[in-house]
Amino acid sequence: MHGKKSDQFRLFLFLVTFAIRNKKQIMAQKPSIPKGTRDFSPVEMARRNYIFDTVKEIFQRYGFQPIETPAMENLSTLMGKYGEEGDKLLFKILNSGDFISKVNDGELQERNSIRLTNQISEKGLRYDLTVPFARFVVQHRNDISFPFKRYQIQPVWRADRPQKGRYREFYQCDVDMIGSTSLLNELELVQIINDVFTKLDINTVVKINNRKILAGIAETIGEADRIVDITVAIDKLDKIGLEKVNLELLEKGVSQDAVDKLQPILKLSGSNNEKLDQIEAVIGATTVGKKGVEEMQTLFGYLSGFELNTEVELDLTLARGLNYYTGAIFEVKAKDVQIGSICGGGRYDDLTGIFGMPDVSGVGISFGADRIYDVMTQLELFPEDAVASTKVMFVNFGEKEEAYCLPILAKLRAQHVNAEIYPESAKMKKQMTWANRKEVAYVVLVGEEEIKQGKVTLKNMKTGEQQLATPDELISILAV
Amino acid sequence: MHGKKSDQFRLFLFLVTFAIRNKKQIMAQKPSIPKGTRDFSPVEMARRNYIFDTVKEIFQRYGFQPIETPAMENLSTLMGKYGEEGDKLLFKILNSGDFISKVNDGELQERNSIRLTNQISEKGLRYDLTVPFARFVVQHRNDISFPFKRYQIQPVWRADRPQKGRYREFYQCDVDMIGSTSLLNELELVQIINDVFTKLDINTVVKINNRKILAGIAETIGEADRIVDITVAIDKLDKIGLEKVNLELLEKGVSQDAVDKLQPILKLSGSNNEKLDQIEAVIGATTVGKKGVEEMQTLFGYLSGFELNTEVELDLTLARGLNYYTGAIFEVKAKDVQIGSICGGGRYDDLTGIFGMPDVSGVGISFGADRIYDVMTQLELFPEDAVASTKVMFVNFGEKEEAYCLPILAKLRAQHVNAEIYPESAKMKKQMTWANRKEVAYVVLVGEEEIKQGKVTLKNMKTGEQQLATPDELISILAV
Repeated sequence: MHGKKSDQFRLFLFLVTFAIRNKKQIMAQKPSIPKGTRDFSPVEMARRNYIFDTVKEIFQRYGFQPIETPAMENLSTLMGKYGEEGDKLLFKILNSGDFISKVNDGELQERNSIRLTNQISEKGLRYDLTVPFARFVVQHRNDISFPFKRYQIQPVWRADRPQKGRYREFYQCDVDMIGSTSLLNELELVQIINDVFTKLDINTVVKINNRKILAGIAETIGEADRIVDITVAIDKLDKIGLEKVNLELLEKGVSQDAVDKLQPILKLSGSNNEKLDQIEAVIGATTVGKKGVEEMQTLFGYLSGFELNTEVELDLTLARGLNYYTGAIFEVKAKDVQIGSICGGGRYDDLTGIFGMPDVSGVGISFGADRIYDVMTQLELFPEDAVASTKVMFVNFGEKEEAYCLPILAKLRAQHVNAEIYPESAKMKKQMTWANRKEVAYVVLVGEEEIKQGKVTLKNMKTGEQQLATPDELISILAV
Repeated sequence: MHGKKSDQFRLFLFLVTFAIRNKKQIMAQKPSIPKGTRDFSPVEMARRNYIFDTVKEIFQRYGFQPIETPAMENLSTLMGKYGEEGDKLLFKILNSGDFISKVNDGELQERNSIRLTNQISEKGLRYDLTVPFARFVVQHRNDISFPFKRYQIQPVWRADRPQKGRYREFYQCDVDMIGSTSLLNELELVQIINDVFTKLDINTVVKINNRKILAGIAETIGEADRIVDITVAIDKLDKIGLEKVNLELLEKGVSQDAVDKLQPILKLSGSNNEKLDQIEAVIGATTVGKKGVEEMQTLFGYLSGFELNTEVELDLTLARGLNYYTGAIFEVKAKDVQIGSICGGGRYDDLTGIFGMPDVSGVGISFGADRIYDVMTQLELFPEDAVASTKVMFVNFGEKEEAYCLPILAKLRAQHVNAEIYPESAKMKKQMTWANRKEVAYVVLVGEEEIKQGKVTLKNMKTGEQQLATPDELISILAV
C-alpha cells in the first residue's frame, strides 16, 4: 500500500511537473496580446498610413488643424457621458501605490465592484474623441480663437465584447468645427467626405437627415415624444412595406389621425428638393420643422453648386445619435461592399455644456479607419506604392564589395532615395529572398568585375532586367 | 433658542449649498487632465510632427519599416521586465465587470495592494517600446524575415512622479535591427543620428562605449563584478579629478593593484583610435576586452569613411542600461543646450530570450521627442513653415460674395492649396484677427467691385501688399 501510494504520488508529481512545464513552455513559446487588440505589421502600417495620410491631407486642405489629448482622462470627465452601459465599457486605471489602504472596511466588505471602482480608480482610457474634445475646448477656451476647426486622429478604447470587425482598441479620425452655426460648415464636411473617398477610390453615398425635421414630423402628428418610434418605423419601409409600417405605428400607440398625416412623408419620392417640398407641405407649420427644412434647402442649395463624386441623399430614416445631434445628421455608406457606415456625424448645439460652457454650436464627422481599411482590402484599392518601402537594396558580397558600396549607398540616401545594404555577406539566395519579401524595387549587385570597371549592376526586381551603370548613372536612375 | 438654532441651521444649509455650488462651478469651469499628461495645441502638434516626420523620413531612408503594438499589454508580458521599481510604475488596468467577486475573503482582508492587483488587473499600459517589440518579434517570428528592421513611434506611460520635463505619457521613437550581429548596423545607427540632427539643425556629439570593453577592464584588474563601481568612478574624473577617483575606488574595496592597473585608462587621451590603442594595451589580454576593442575599431573604421556633422567620441564613462546592453552603447548630447541625452541605445544579445526565443542579437536607439522639442524651442530651430497651416483665407462679406468665392475656393483646393473661407459674414476685424492668429499667409477679399470686374483682391498678410487678380491668376500665384 505504502509503495503504491508512493507511486501514485510520484505519478501525481510527474503530471503536475509536466503540466507546469508544459504551460511554461506554451507561455514562453507564444506570448500574446489582450483580446480585441492588434499588432500592426509593416504592410498593415503602410496601408493604414495611406488612409490616415489621405484623411489628414484633406482635413488640412479645408483649414482644419490637429490636436491631441492624453490617452487617460480623469474619470470625472468620462463617467456619465456615454450612458450607464458606456460607463461599464470604460477601461479604468488602478490608482498607483497602496490604493487599497484608502478603502474603509465597510466598503471592502460590501464587495460592490462599481462603488469600489470609485475608491481605487481615478483615471480611465478615452472612449471616444468627442468628450475629450469638449473638455479640451472648455479647458483652453481662452487660448482658442473661435470658430475652432480641429481634427484629431487617435486610438480609443472600449471594453466591448470583441468580435469580427469590432476591437477594444481602434482609431477614430474626427474633424469638427465648433463655434459657428453657419451651414457652410455642413457643406464643407460633405465636400471633405467627397474628397477623401474620391482620393481613396471608394464609391459612396452620403445620407443626410436633420433632427429638426424629425422633431417637426413628430410635432405635426401630435406625437412630439415619439421621434424614435416614428423613425424606427420609417426605417422599415423598404423591408416590410407601407401597410405593415402603418400597422406597427398604430400598435405602438400612435393615433390613426397621426398615421394618416404621416402618409405623404412615408411615400416621399423624387429628388432631394422635391422631397423637401413634400416634407415642407406636411410640417411647415411647426417652427422647428420649418427651420429644419430651411436648413436642408440651404445645404442642398450649396451642394448643387458642386460636382461631387459621392451621391448625396436626403434620408429621413437616419437617426444616428439622435439624442445628441440637433441639426444635420450625416452617414456615409460604401456602395460596393456590404458593411456598416464608414463615416458619420452631425451638428450638436451643446457639446461643451457638460463642462460648463453652454450654447456653443458645432458640427463634425468621424471617419472609421478600420472599416475603410476593410472596404479597401476587399475591393483591392490600396495602390502598390502605398506598401513599397525601400527602393533599392545592395547585395552584400563581403568586406571588399561592402567598402566599395557604402559611399554609393550614402550618396543615394543624400538624394533622398530609400536604400539599404544587406548587413551581412549571407548567401545570395537568402539576400534576394529578403529583398523580395520586403518588396524592394531594385537590387544592386557589385562583384569583382564591377569594382574593376568602377560600375554597379542594377537589377529591376519586377522585370528581372539588369544593367551596368556608373554610380552617377545609378543615382540619376533611382533619384526620381 | 429654537429660533436661533433654526437660524444657525439655515446658515449651515446656506453654507453647505454655497460650498457645493461653488465646487460644482469650479469643477464646471475648469475641467482638467491627469497630472503628468498633456494636451497638444495645433502649434505644438505642428512642431511635434515636424520632429516625428523628420525621424520617420530618415528611418525609411535606411530601410526601416514601421510597426505598432497595442497600448495595453498583458501584465504577464510587462511585469518583471523593468525591475521591482518598474513594476510599481506600470499603469494597471482594472478588469472589466464584477472584478471583486473573484477575490476571496482572505485576500481581501489581507489588504495587500500588490497581491490584490494580481487578482483584479490583467492588463497594463506599455512602459516602453522595447518589451512590446520583443514580444512582437517572438509572437510573429514565423511571419518576419530576419534581419528585421523596424521603427516604432508611439506613446508610453509611466506612473512616475511628474516634474519639469518628465511626463506620465510621452512618446518614444525607437529604431531597431534584430537578427544581425554585423557592425554595419551600428554604423547605420550613427548615420541615422547624424542625418536626423543635421536635418533638425541641432549640433550634437554621439558618445560611444562598449560593454565588452568595460567588462574587459573589470576582468583585467581582477574585479570582474565591479563594472558599475568602476564606471561610476571613471564618470567622476572631470568633476573631482584623478586623485579623488583613485581614493573612491580604494574606499569601495578595489585593490591598490587594480587601481594601479587602471591608471592608463583613467588618463586616456588623444583621438578615438589613439584611445583604443591605449585601452588595447591594458585589456587586450582578456578575450572579452579584446573583442570589445575590435568592435570599436571596426565601427570607428567604418565611421572614418564618412563626413559627419555630428561629433563622435569614445567615452568609457557611458554606462547607460549597463545590465541590458552587451556591445556598443550610444548616447547623444545636444552641444548648445544643457539637457540630458536626446537619443540613446545600444546592442543587446538576448532581448527576446525572456519570451522564449534565445540568441537573437539586435541593436537599436531611441529618440527622445520631448527633449528634442525642448532643445529646438530653446534654440528657436523650428522653421516657420512647420507651423503654417492654411495658405489662404477668404474673408466672408455676405451671401452674394460667398456665392462668388465658393467655386474659386474649390478650384484652389483641387490644386492642393490649403484654403478656407470664414464661415460667417462676421465683422472684418474679427475675421482678420482670426486669420492672423492662425498664421494664414494670404487673405482674399471680394466685394462688389471685385465681383463686377470678375476678380479678387489678394492680400499678403506678412508684407501687407495687395493685388487685384483674376481667379486663374490667383490659382497660379498660390498653387506652388
